Amino acid sequence: MSDIVQSLFNQSTLGIKPSPIREVFHLVRKPGMISFAGGMPDPDIFPIKQFHQGTDILLAEGREILQYGVTEGYEPLRDFLIRWSAPKMGREPNQEELLITSGSLQAADLLTRTLVDRGDWIVCEEASFPGNTISMYNQGANFITVPCDQDGMVVEALPELLDQAKADGKRVKYIYTIPNFHNPLGCTLSLERRKLLVDIAKRYGLLILEDDPYGCVRFEGDNLPTLYSLDRVGLVLYAGSFSKILAPGTRVGWAVGPQKLIRAMTVHKQGVDTCTSVVAQALVYSYCQSGKLDAFLPKIVDHYRIKRDIMEEAFKKHLPLDETRYVTPQGGFFYWVTTPNISAQELFRRAMTKNVAFVCGDAFFPNGGGKNSFRMCFTFASAEETDRGTHLLGEAMRELLAERV
Amino acid sequence: MSDIVQSLFNQSTLGIKPSPIREVFHLVRKPGMISFAGGMPDPDIFPIKQFHQGTDILLAEGREILQYGVTEGYEPLRDFLIRWSAPKMGREPNQEELLITSGSLQAADLLTRTLVDRGDWIVCEEASFPGNTISMYNQGANFITVPCDQDGMVVEALPELLDQAKADGKRVKYIYTIPNFHNPLGCTLSLERRKLLVDIAKRYGLLILEDDPYGCVRFEGDNLPTLYSLDRVGLVLYAGSFSKILAPGTRVGWAVGPQKLIRAMTVHKQGVDTCTSVVAQALVYSYCQSGKLDAFLPKIVDHYRIKRDIMEEAFKKHLPLDETRYVTPQGGFFYWVTTPNISAQELFRRAMTKNVAFVCGDAFFPNGGGKNSFRMCFTFASAEETDRGTHLLGEAMRELLAERV
Repeated sequence: MSDIVQSLFNQSTLGIKPSPIREVFHLVRKPGMISFAGGMPDPDIFPIKQFHQGTDILLAEGREILQYGVTEGYEPLRDFLIRWSAPKMGREPNQEELLITSGSLQAADLLTRTLVDRGDWIVCEEASFPGNTISMYNQGANFITVPCDQDGMVVEALPELLDQAKADGKRVKYIYTIPNFHNPLGCTLSLERRKLLVDIAKRYGLLILEDDPYGCVRFEGDNLPTLYSLDRVGLVLYAGSFSKILAPGTRVGWAVGPQKLIRAMTVHKQGVDTCTSVVAQALVYSYCQSGKLDAFLPKIVDHYRIKRDIMEEAFKKHLPLDETRYVTPQGGFFYWVTTPNISAQELFRRAMTKNVAFVCGDAFFPNGGGKNSFRMCFTFASAEETDRGTHLLGEAMRELLAERV
Repeated sequence: MSDIVQSLFNQSTLGIKPSPIREVFHLVRKPGMISFAGGMPDPDIFPIKQFHQGTDILLAEGREILQYGVTEGYEPLRDFLIRWSAPKMGREPNQEELLITSGSLQAADLLTRTLVDRGDWIVCEEASFPGNTISMYNQGANFITVPCDQDGMVVEALPELLDQAKADGKRVKYIYTIPNFHNPLGCTLSLERRKLLVDIAKRYGLLILEDDPYGCVRFEGDNLPTLYSLDRVGLVLYAGSFSKILAPGTRVGWAVGPQKLIRAMTVHKQGVDTCTSVVAQALVYSYCQSGKLDAFLPKIVDHYRIKRDIMEEAFKKHLPLDETRYVTPQGGFFYWVTTPNISAQELFRRAMTKNVAFVCGDAFFPNGGGKNSFRMCFTFASAEETDRGTHLLGEAMRELLAERV
C-alpha cells in the first residue's frame, strides 16, 4: 500500500515536533502515579457549583450563544474583561485592542502566524514554556535565548545579543517573556528590567509578547506593573488566561495589544476557529459578572500558597539539601529544582520506578540546557501525595548519589 | 511615534487577507436589514432548553470538564462520534483516526498547517467556502480551480490540470472539496465522480479534504457514500461539524482520517489551542448521548426544507425569471443565483439601499469569477423576511435591467 501521507510529509520542510511535556502527560496517566509534572490547577478548588449556576445564561441568551459569534469575542465578556483587567494591568485597553482567544496559547500562536516567516528569530528566556516555543518552532521560528536569574530575564544582555543577531543577518520579530512567576523558572522580572526591556524593544523595533497566566496568583509581595502598562508606543501584546484562576477546560483567554496587530490576529483567527466557543465564553462571562471570580481569587491564592509551603516543607524534610538548589517562588505553580550532581533524566527514570513524575529541565530549553534541573508543580498533587512523592524523590536522589561514588 | 507593528508587517511576506464574507457580516448588522448573506442556522430552531438540560454534566463531571483536556478530544464525545458517524460515513474510524476540532474549519486549518509550505498549491472547486480558502491563502497556498456543474466538481478535468501543474513544477498537496450541497454552489458530487476523484487522488499521490458540514441536511434523494468510505489507501480527511445540525456557538467539530495525518494534526493542535473547550465538548456530548441529536435531526431537515421552498416560491413570485438562473438544492443552506445581464456587485449596492443583503459571487472564487452570480442563504431569514426581501431584490433587479436599456 502506498503511503500518501508519508510521501507528502517527506515533501514538506515543516517541523512537527510534539511537546515534550505532552509526552510526559501520557506516561503519568498510569494509575498510582504521583505527578508533579503537568502545570495543572487543583481540581479540588474548581468552583463547580458556582460555574454551573451560571448556565442559566443559556436559557436567557441561547439564541445568541448557540449562534456563530463575532471573531473578536462575546461582547459582554469583552466589556467585562476591559473593566476587570484595567486596574490589574495598570492601563485600560480600548475595544479595538482586545481579542478573546481560545486559551492564552492562542494569543502566542496568532502572533506567530501573523509575524513569523520561516527562518525568523524569536527572543525568549533560556528556559521557557514549551507549549508556546514548540508551536513557534513548528511554524519555522528559531530562538535567541537570554540567561535568567532570580529577577527574571537578564535584560542587560539583550543589546549585545540583538546586535550580534543583526550582524548575522537574523530577522528577529519579537521577544517572548513570562514576566510573573516564570514557567518553569519561577522567577519574576524586576521593575527595573521591565522598564529596560520595553526601552530595548523600542530601540530595536521589536514587539514583546507578555505571557501572564500566573499574574493573579501572587502569594506575597507587591504586584509589578505590566510591560503593557509601561509601553508608550504600541509594542506589547499582553496574553491573559482564565486557566489558572478559574478553569482551563473553558479554553478562554484574551490578548490585549496594538490595534493594528489585534486586527491582523483577528483576521487569522477567522481562519483558525471563526471564534472562540461562544458557549464557553458565555459561561465564563456569566460566572465572572456575578462577582464570583473576584470572590474566588483570594481563595485560590491562599489555597496555592499553602500547597507551595507544603512542597517546600517536604523538600526540607525529604531531599538531600546540600545537593539541591531552589528558590521559593512568590507565586505561580512551580518550583525549579537544580541538582548539580544528578542528571535530571536519570532521576526521572529512577523516580518513575517509584511512581513519581516531574518534567526534566531540558524539555524547557529551546537551545539546549537544563540537564541538572527539573520542574515540580505544587498545585496539582494533594498534600499527602506531595509529602509521599517528595519522600520517594529524595530516596531516588540518594540512590543515584550513592551509585556515583 | 514610530509604528513598530507596521514596520514588522512590512518585513513579512505573509498574506493577511480578511474573509470577504466577514466584511459583509459587518454591513448587515444594520437594524432593519434582511440578510440572506451569512450561512447561519435559524435561531428559532436552536434546541435551547434541551441543550441547557445537558449542563448537569458539569456538576457530575466538573473535576474533569473544568481541567485541561487531552488534545485528541473529550473521550465520551470521541466514543459517541465514532459510533454515531460510522453508519453516516459508511465506514467506522478507529480511535487513532479521530480528532475533535474547534469547529470543522479547524480541520482544514490544521491540515494546511501540517502539509502546506508557502507557495504550494491546493485544488478546489472554482467557487469554494472562503472561510477555508482565505485561511489557506493566508498560509501561503495558491489554488488550482476546477469547473463545476450540477453534479459537483468536474472531476474529469482533473488529470489534465494536475499534469499541467506537474509540468509547471507546482507542488500540489491536496484537493479540497465540499461534496454535499456545496457552499456556495448548492451542487452535490455524483457517485461516479466520487469514485473517480478518489482514484485520481491515489494516482497523483494527493490527499482529499472532504468538508461535509451539510451532509445531514438532505431534503430529498438518497445519501451518497462519503469519499472517506470509498478510500482504501488512506488519503481522505473527512471534516464534520455540529454547526448546522446543533449549534455553531459550541465550536465543536471533528476530523477523521489516516492515523499518521491525525497524529501530525494533533501535534499542531497542541500549539494552537491545547484542546477544544472541554466545557463545550462535554455539553455537546451530554446533549447528544441522551438521544436528543437523533430526535432533532429530522426536525431540522423538515424545517429547512420548508424554508428552502419558501425561498423558491418567493423567487418565482418576485424575480424576473427570464433573467435568473438557479438550481433547486437538495439540501444544505444555499441557492446559487446567476443573473447573466446583471452585475452582482451592482445588484448588491442597489439591494443594500433597500436593506437587503446577500454575498456576491466573486467572494467565493479564489482565482476570480462569479461576477454575475450571488449566494442566497435560505435558513436564517424568517418566512416573512424571505418573501419581503426577495420582493425588494426583484425590484432592484428590474431597476438595474431598466437602467441598462
